[in-house]
Amino acid sequence: MINLYSDNVAPVPTEIMEALQEANRVSAMPYGADQTTDQAAAALSMVFERQVFVTPVPTGTAANALSMSLLCRPYGAVFATDCAHIHTSEAGATEFFTGGAKIVTLPAPDGRLGTDALDDAIGRAGKGQRFRSQPDAISITNGTELGTVYSLAAVTALTAVARRHGLTVHMDGARFANALARLGCSPADLTWRAGVDVLSLGMTKNSATGVEAVVCFDEKRAEEAAHRARRYGFTYSKMRFASAQIVASVQNDLWRRLAVQANAAASKLADGLRAMPEVSILHPVEINHIFLTVPVAAAEALLAHGLRIGHRGGGLIRIVTSWMTSDEMIKGAVHAFERAIATTRKG
Amino acid sequence: MINLYSDNVAPVPTEIMEALQEANRVSAMPYGADQTTDQAAAALSMVFERQVFVTPVPTGTAANALSMSLLCRPYGAVFATDCAHIHTSEAGATEFFTGGAKIVTLPAPDGRLGTDALDDAIGRAGKGQRFRSQPDAISITNGTELGTVYSLAAVTALTAVARRHGLTVHMDGARFANALARLGCSPADLTWRAGVDVLSLGMTKNSATGVEAVVCFDEKRAEEAAHRARRYGFTYSKMRFASAQIVASVQNDLWRRLAVQANAAASKLADGLRAMPEVSILHPVEINHIFLTVPVAAAEALLAHGLRIGHRGGGLIRIVTSWMTSDEMIKGAVHAFERAIATTRKG
Amino acid sequence: MINLYSDNVAPVPTEIMEALQEANRVSAMPYGADQTTDQAAAALSMVFERQVFVTPVPTGTAANALSMSLLCRPYGAVFATDCAHIHTSEAGATEFFTGGAKIVTLPAPDGRLGTDALDDAIGRAGKGQRFRSQPDAISITNGTELGTVYSLAAVTALTAVARRHGLTVHMDGARFANALARLGCSPADLTWRAGVDVLSLGMTKNSATGVEAVVCFDEKRAEEAAHRARRYGFTYSKMRFASAQIVASVQNDLWRRLAVQANAAASKLADGLRAMPEVSILHPVEINHIFLTVPVAAAEALLAHGLRIGHRGGGLIRIVTSWMTSDEMIKGAVHAFERAIATTRKG
Amino acid sequence: MINLYSDNVAPVPTEIMEALQEANRVSAMPYGADQTTDQAAAALSMVFERQVFVTPVPTGTAANALSMSLLCRPYGAVFATDCAHIHTSEAGATEFFTGGAKIVTLPAPDGRLGTDALDDAIGRAGKGQRFRSQPDAISITNGTELGTVYSLAAVTALTAVARRHGLTVHMDGARFANALARLGCSPADLTWRAGVDVLSLGMTKNSATGVEAVVCFDEKRAEEAAHRARRYGFTYSKMRFASAQIVASVQNDLWRRLAVQANAAASKLADGLRAMPEVSILHPVEINHIFLTVPVAAAEALLAHGLRIGHRGGGLIRIVTSWMTSDEMIKGAVHAFERAIATTRKG
Repeated sequence: MINLYSDNVAPVPTEIMEALQEANRVSAMPYGADQTTDQAAAALSMVFERQVFVTPVPTGTAANALSMSLLCRPYGAVFATDCAHIHTSEAGATEFFTGGAKIVTLPAPDGRLGTDALDDAIGRAGKGQRFRSQPDAISITNGTELGTVYSLAAVTALTAVARRHGLTVHMDGARFANALARLGCSPADLTWRAGVDVLSLGMTKNSATGVEAVVCFDEKRAEEAAHRARRYGFTYSKMRFASAQIVASVQNDLWRRLAVQANAAASKLADGLRAMPEVSILHPVEINHIFLTVPVAAAEALLAHGLRIGHRGGGLIRIVTSWMTSDEMIKGAVHAFERAIATTRKG
Repeated sequence: MINLYSDNVAPVPTEIMEALQEANRVSAMPYGADQTTDQAAAALSMVFERQVFVTPVPTGTAANALSMSLLCRPYGAVFATDCAHIHTSEAGATEFFTGGAKIVTLPAPDGRLGTDALDDAIGRAGKGQRFRSQPDAISITNGTELGTVYSLAAVTALTAVARRHGLTVHMDGARFANALARLGCSPADLTWRAGVDVLSLGMTKNSATGVEAVVCFDEKRAEEAAHRARRYGFTYSKMRFASAQIVASVQNDLWRRLAVQANAAASKLADGLRAMPEVSILHPVEINHIFLTVPVAAAEALLAHGLRIGHRGGGLIRIVTSWMTSDEMIKGAVHAFERAIATTRKG
Repeated sequence: MINLYSDNVAPVPTEIMEALQEANRVSAMPYGADQTTDQAAAALSMVFERQVFVTPVPTGTAANALSMSLLCRPYGAVFATDCAHIHTSEAGATEFFTGGAKIVTLPAPDGRLGTDALDDAIGRAGKGQRFRSQPDAISITNGTELGTVYSLAAVTALTAVARRHGLTVHMDGARFANALARLGCSPADLTWRAGVDVLSLGMTKNSATGVEAVVCFDEKRAEEAAHRARRYGFTYSKMRFASAQIVASVQNDLWRRLAVQANAAASKLADGLRAMPEVSILHPVEINHIFLTVPVAAAEALLAHGLRIGHRGGGLIRIVTSWMTSDEMIKGAVHAFERAIATTRKG
Repeated sequence: MINLYSDNVAPVPTEIMEALQEANRVSAMPYGADQTTDQAAAALSMVFERQVFVTPVPTGTAANALSMSLLCRPYGAVFATDCAHIHTSEAGATEFFTGGAKIVTLPAPDGRLGTDALDDAIGRAGKGQRFRSQPDAISITNGTELGTVYSLAAVTALTAVARRHGLTVHMDGARFANALARLGCSPADLTWRAGVDVLSLGMTKNSATGVEAVVCFDEKRAEEAAHRARRYGFTYSKMRFASAQIVASVQNDLWRRLAVQANAAASKLADGLRAMPEVSILHPVEINHIFLTVPVAAAEALLAHGLRIGHRGGGLIRIVTSWMTSDEMIKGAVHAFERAIATTRKG
């Protein structure tokens, strides 16, 4: 079966399994007091071209929730798009872990927060007024939930707005590697050099079994992150198994290679689908997502044929490729769309 | 180096690594909508001799915090020993995830809650009085934090007290397999048949890389658990890797065999240490823990010699064995104690 | 100075001051175990034509936050307008007291939630899906934040939608008396008979020094309210002073008479302002609020002249009348507008 | 009926009622933007001999909870006696408003925290260890819950311990005026000069209808207090009625005179009771509380005779006097005890 439901349906690459085996060779102290975890910190510091402070956590929701609890006071507000994962898909984790902060959502064409819209929204948020949740942070997702990316210039412009108003900046990097691959830039350029304070660095959708890292560029904040992570139940006792995956992911640029593959697969598949007049692709395909519409009957036919895709109701479909989406799977998917659409033509 | 610091320092057994490999063969739907997760639920239902509802989570703190949030209202109170892990070692996770419940602690000789003390404490807790946190639940740890176990009769007596007062019952089973091994009873006998409502079923200290399971015996509560777990950032997207470890752990009674080994190692080591007059063993060694005191200088010598143990200050030491604590390690540890104590004699 | 900034700027009527004096005659047991509090419950039960359960609290935010904590689980969502006081003006109290619930906001022409929009929004909210905050409650404000009211039919239609989806219904009645006065209906008709589960019954904006009441129509929920209120710091120890004001407010229909006066003043003032072509009144003036725009220069002139009004930026102004807004004040206000606008004409 | 159940059963003195009348003469801006609130801040700054920052709130639980939320992080711990009001009588408000902090309780002979015990407890609290709630604050109640006071030297010694460990200091001054009256010292000496960071200044048990003030000696913390208070539903919209009571309370030293009367009444009553051999007074009577034991039958007889006292089970009784406890009431109470005890003698 061809599974394009999401990138987290894929197996993990051999390098990751080998890293787990390797980490299992010896005993190691728990909760991160082990050598592998030191190596992970060192590896990420190398990758980010400066000392970074890493808190590995098990899930993307954990990474984002921990990050928001660091950046946003209980009586604070965070500004994000109305399609932000923290708003639509984490069951209120941000509200919970911050102690009741408010997510102020803004419309986001193609999934991207606009600089002017952000500036305007913060300006109207009632800073200093006691009846309003106080503007504390912005959260931007790169690559976005709609499969696009923010350019370096766009990130820098947004963080400049945040700074001007005294806000901090979170980047939800659930698909950070995909954004890197698309932009061809360095992790440093896309984060701290562009004004990002805390990064949710996604590993699981790229390669790992269940590892994300909250990356802080400030030691004091990282110290707080460590306390909070433990209290939140996010700190693996056998941390070495998480850390080993981080090391393996960034070693030899594995994560970027996997992301390049995933992005290329989406691009190729989008080209195949775009050829069909019944298919409308909704957003620029810049990473590994394709949002499209087909006639409702075609969507139903696709599901019936057993192609695993994200059906969002009606004729709206989300497709996500991964590092293991092969050319054969792409061909199979295109063929499935052709057959499904053909059915509707006959009708 | 001989590492007896805790059971979570040990590697995972081959069966677990093979299960991870196996789970990695194919693509699978995320967040538990996969076959392996169905198998884990089925396997645990078999083990518990009835349908149980399983929510896999990454850590013991996560399991306990989720459990407490199910059993204890924000304005509730949970009764536990003053050495309960939820009170001493989870950085306030219970207070956080419940929305501010209070842990009422009771003295616990050898780590066990007393039936009369519990009855008395609940009776004085001010049920119905609006200025008091309302008694909602009890939490008992089996095997206990001090290396003892509650007998079936003891568990039943405690849950009867809880029931009589209208409270629910949580069992912290971080070392549940060790308790099973010690008591020689069935999982069913030790939990639902004895009146337990929710079990934190520990896998990591027994065998897994980072998997615990919240086991509910009530479907409605489990439904709530699923919602809460997702919101809490506890739900693995690649759940299959967690579920595969659950299946492997209980298959062919692996978990019990590992626990038997760990318990036996502690017993043997305790026998070796007990022979030295300078060593005082503090609690009955019923699972895989040894609490002991030695002269302070001996404790320092031990640490200097590189034996990894839990030093609790002064001459107080905690030793924890695991499935991979070999006879050779036991001999080595005894020898290290002998040398360290000899040093103090010379002094 | 003419103060039309809000209705909470007004003094309290003589009846209230006399009630305070009366309550001060004797000693009384604390936290509501006094006769006056019994009388308040009886008086409101009479007013609502059935037994109601009353939890007096000090502020409107307290009333709403307590109500929401009763109706909405931590992982729940409440549906409200985008101008709902709970969303715009309580600094995230709902998010905090619920333990992190989400407020889903809907556009609201003239401040009123639309039945179809509500139905649609709940339908798309992902009931049962674990990555979504679960739809739990709706909150409607009557009279609304924009000075309009929901008719009985409108309330009933909205609560029917809520019921059909299994949601509960909160009414923010900060200006409940104004709505009653406008609609000419009974408190029972506007609440439980129309499907409301919990009412934030506003007293302070109508008459009291600082008293609101959370009115439950269900005893079990009220019991929980009592526990929560105490824990939230909302329960007056000298409750008799709050309860006495509740009794005095509803006695001889005082609250309705005060609301009739306030509404009539707004209506008269709106008529006076409507005559000026530079004034645009934005919403139907159905209770004691007037939202209007004037040329920006006129707005600034008004403020400079010392008329106390709510300036919302640019030329947008909110005027709120109260029971003590006299005809003389209305004339004075109209005159102030005339002068301010005249200034701009000269320019 | 003689009511010695608590000090909050008393009426408020004439000066307070007159202040309410006076505050009601004019319109005033809401939420503290009124002249009376400015006067309250000025009056307290005079009283405390420096600029202080005042946040009026409705209840003692509100004052303490707000204070703790300022001083204690969500993952923090506060050290207090095991009879501290924040621990025993506020239904978990501290746990809730801090976002899940832990109250570490210490035994307290006569209600007072010991310097050495505190030092020791903080030392063992695991500062910097991620599995422990982090020591953040101490909370001391003066006058204590058991009717004693801390001397200036005792307060200073405790705050020195807190400082040395980097903790902040809260004083629960629910009966602050009683302590002042007893110690004959100034408010400044008992608070900021002795190292207190935030004071819950009780007014209600002394004189007011329902007003307490969180007094900060640091402007930045006070700004946070203002935001939190609004969000917590603690900020009166008609603040002038609260502020007027604060002004009246401290004017002409009213609060101290009332406290002197209350303390004297307790002292006199204690003398009367001490004369009976069946009465054992449990703690030094230093403010307006008497804790005593009588034979159980006598306690029951007392309740049956209609004397309102706090019955704590068995023969344990708490008596609290107030400013309006007259000599006649004292005589009546002594007489009631004599009769009740006489009954038991006959038996």
